[in-house]
Amino acid sequence: MTDIKITEVALRDGSHAIRHQYTVDQVRSIAKALNEARVPYIEVSHGDGLGGSTLQYGLSKTNELELVEAAVDAVDFSKIAVLLIPGIGTIEDLKEAEKLGAKMARIATHVTEADVSAQHIQTAKELGMETVGFLMMSHMAPTEKLVEQAKLMESYGADIVYVVDSAGALLPHEVRARIKALKHELSCDIGFHGHNNLSLAMGNSLAAIEEGANRIDGSIRCLGAGAGNTQTEALIAVLDRMGITTGIDLYKMMDIAEEIVAPILPKPQEITRDSLTLGYAGVYSSFLLHANRASEKFGIDSRDILIELGERKIVGGQEDMIIDVAAELASQKANV
Amino acid sequence: MTDIKITEVALRDGSHAIRHQYTVDQVRSIAKALNEARVPYIEVSHGDGLGGSTLQYGLSKTNELELVEAAVDAVDFSKIAVLLIPGIGTIEDLKEAEKLGAKMARIATHVTEADVSAQHIQTAKELGMETVGFLMMSHMAPTEKLVEQAKLMESYGADIVYVVDSAGALLPHEVRARIKALKHELSCDIGFHGHNNLSLAMGNSLAAIEEGANRIDGSIRCLGAGAGNTQTEALIAVLDRMGITTGIDLYKMMDIAEEIVAPILPKPQEITRDSLTLGYAGVYSSFLLHANRASEKFGIDSRDILIELGERKIVGGQEDMIIDVAAELASQKANV
Repeated sequence: MTDIKITEVALRDGSHAIRHQYTVDQVRSIAKALNEARVPYIEVSHGDGLGGSTLQYGLSKTNELELVEAAVDAVDFSKIAVLLIPGIGTIEDLKEAEKLGAKMARIATHVTEADVSAQHIQTAKELGMETVGFLMMSHMAPTEKLVEQAKLMESYGADIVYVVDSAGALLPHEVRARIKALKHELSCDIGFHGHNNLSLAMGNSLAAIEEGANRIDGSIRCLGAGAGNTQTEALIAVLDRMGITTGIDLYKMMDIAEEIVAPILPKPQEITRDSLTLGYAGVYSSFLLHANRASEKFGIDSRDILIELGERKIVGGQEDMIIDVAAELASQKANV
Repeated sequence: MTDIKITEVALRDGSHAIRHQYTVDQVRSIAKALNEARVPYIEVSHGDGLGGSTLQYGLSKTNELELVEAAVDAVDFSKIAVLLIPGIGTIEDLKEAEKLGAKMARIATHVTEADVSAQHIQTAKELGMETVGFLMMSHMAPTEKLVEQAKLMESYGADIVYVVDSAGALLPHEVRARIKALKHELSCDIGFHGHNNLSLAMGNSLAAIEEGANRIDGSIRCLGAGAGNTQTEALIAVLDRMGITTGIDLYKMMDIAEEIVAPILPKPQEITRDSLTLGYAGVYSSFLLHANRASEKFGIDSRDILIELGERKIVGGQEDMIIDVAAELASQKANV
C-alpha cells in the first residue's frame, strides 16, 4: 500500500514539449522502463487528449491509438491512462482506447464546465475504467465554484477529481484552500496536476499532499506544456525524504530521465520569458503565438496583452478576443 | 519601502554554472541591466567567494576584483556585494573589495563554524559595509544548533543572518522551522538562500517569507551551483502576485534573463540525475567528481556513496573520506 499514487504524464502532457512527435519505439521504450520502475499509472495521448491530432492542436507524428497500444504491450504492472477532453475527443475514441487495454480514463473540462463530462465519465465507468474528473485551469474559478464543479464530476461517477493548474498559475496558499475544500466536501480521492511556470510545481504538489490529495501527476525530466510539470523523479526523492511512499524506484526513474528521456528532448525544459509570462498571466500557452502576432500589429508588449487576457478570464476558443484586447490597449496607449 | 530585499547572485553563485569564466564585459552588461531593473543588491565574486580562484576551486578567467570594479562602475542604484568564506578568502581581500566600492559583505561559514567569522564580520562592519552572516549547508544542523550559530554571527555584528541551503536539500517544513526559530531568537534581519536540486527553491523561499525572512537570494535564469538557485524573475512574479513588493521591474528582469543571460550559458539549468542526487543526499557538488571516480574503482553506484556521505555528515575538506566510504560499501556488498 503506497501513500501517494503518481500518474506519469510525459507521454501525454510531455507530447507538447516535443510537438507531438513521439514514435512507437520511443513510447514503447519509455513505457517499458516506467513499468520496470513500478510507476502505477502512465498517461498516453496527444497533448490535448484523444483526438487532439488536428491542425488546430498540432498533428501527431503517430496515430495516438498506436501509441496507446504500444504502451499497453510494454507494461505488465503499470496501468495505461488516456486523457479525453469532450469536444476534442469523442466517446468512440474512449471505447477504442479501452479496447486496446487502457485502464484509466481522465475526462478533462474547463473548471467551470464539468457538466459536459457527464456522459464521458459514465461511459468510462461502464467500460470498467478507473475514472478521473480533471478540472483544467483551476486557478480561474474561486474555491466555491471549483467545489460545485468537482461535486458534479463525483456525481457522474468519477473515482478521483483533480485540481489541474494548467497554466502553472496557482500559488501554494491557493492550492491549499482548493484541496482542503474538496477534501471536506467530496468523498472520492483528490488529485493535483501542477505546472512549473512560476517554479512552484513541486511546492504546490507538497501543499496539495499536506491538505489530503493522494493522487499527484508528474512528468519525468519535467516534460510538459509551458515550463513543464512537477518533475517526477524529484517528486519521488522529496516524498521519500518525507517518509511518504510511492512504490516507485527512484534510481530507475533518475536513469530513465537521464538516459532515455533527456536525449529525445529538442531542448531542455526551462522557465523562459514566455512560460513565466503565461504562469503570471494565468493563460493557456496556445495564446502565446496569437499574442505575439497582435503585439507586432499594434505595437503593444505581448505580455501586456496576455496579462489583460488573464484578467478578463479569456479561455480557449475565444482566441479572436486577443486582437480586440490588443487593439483596445493600443488605443488606450494612444490616448494617454 | 519594499517588503522583500532581493540579492541577485548570478554573478557569484552563477559563476559555478559557467565554470568561473565571466568576462569584464559580461559582468558590466549584466550589472548595468540589473541596476536598471532596480535590483537592490548584486553579488559579484568567484563562486566560492573572494580568493576562490585556485586549482582546487576552479580558476577564474578574470581576476574577480576586476569584475567587482566593473560591476561597481556599472551601477548607480544597486549595491555590489561580495562573498567571503574565511579560509578561502582573507580580510585583505575584503578590504580591497571595499576600496573598489563593494557595499555589502557576506561572510560565509559552514553551519556549525560561525566562530571563524568573528574577525571578518567585525572588519566588514568597521569598513562601514552592510554585513551578512551566511550559514552554509544549513540542512546539516538541527534548528537549535543553527540558532546558536546565528546568534554568534549576530553578536559579531551581522546585520542579517542567512539560512543557506547550499545543497538544495531542505524541505519546506524544515525551512519553516529554521526561519521561525531565528525570527524568534534574533533581532537582526533573516535571509534565505535556496538551491533547486529538489525543485523546491521557490517553495522554500515562500515558506521562509511566510515565517518572516525579508532577505531572499535569487539567480536570474536559475544560474547557480547544483540545479541553480531560486530563479529571480520567477520570484519577482510570484511575490508580485502575492502583493509583496520588491521594487524590481519584472519585465526588465525577464528581458535580461532571455536576452543577456541565457545566451552566455553553456547549457540550460535543469534538474539532472547528478544535481537531484546531490539534493537528495544533502552533499556539496564538489563531492560528485570524487564519488564518480570512487564508483568506478569500487564498482559501487556513486549515488550510494553520496547518500552515505550525506548520512555521515561529511563536509568540504573531508574529500579523502569518499574513498573510505566507497571501499566500505564495496566490502559490505561483497559480504552479502
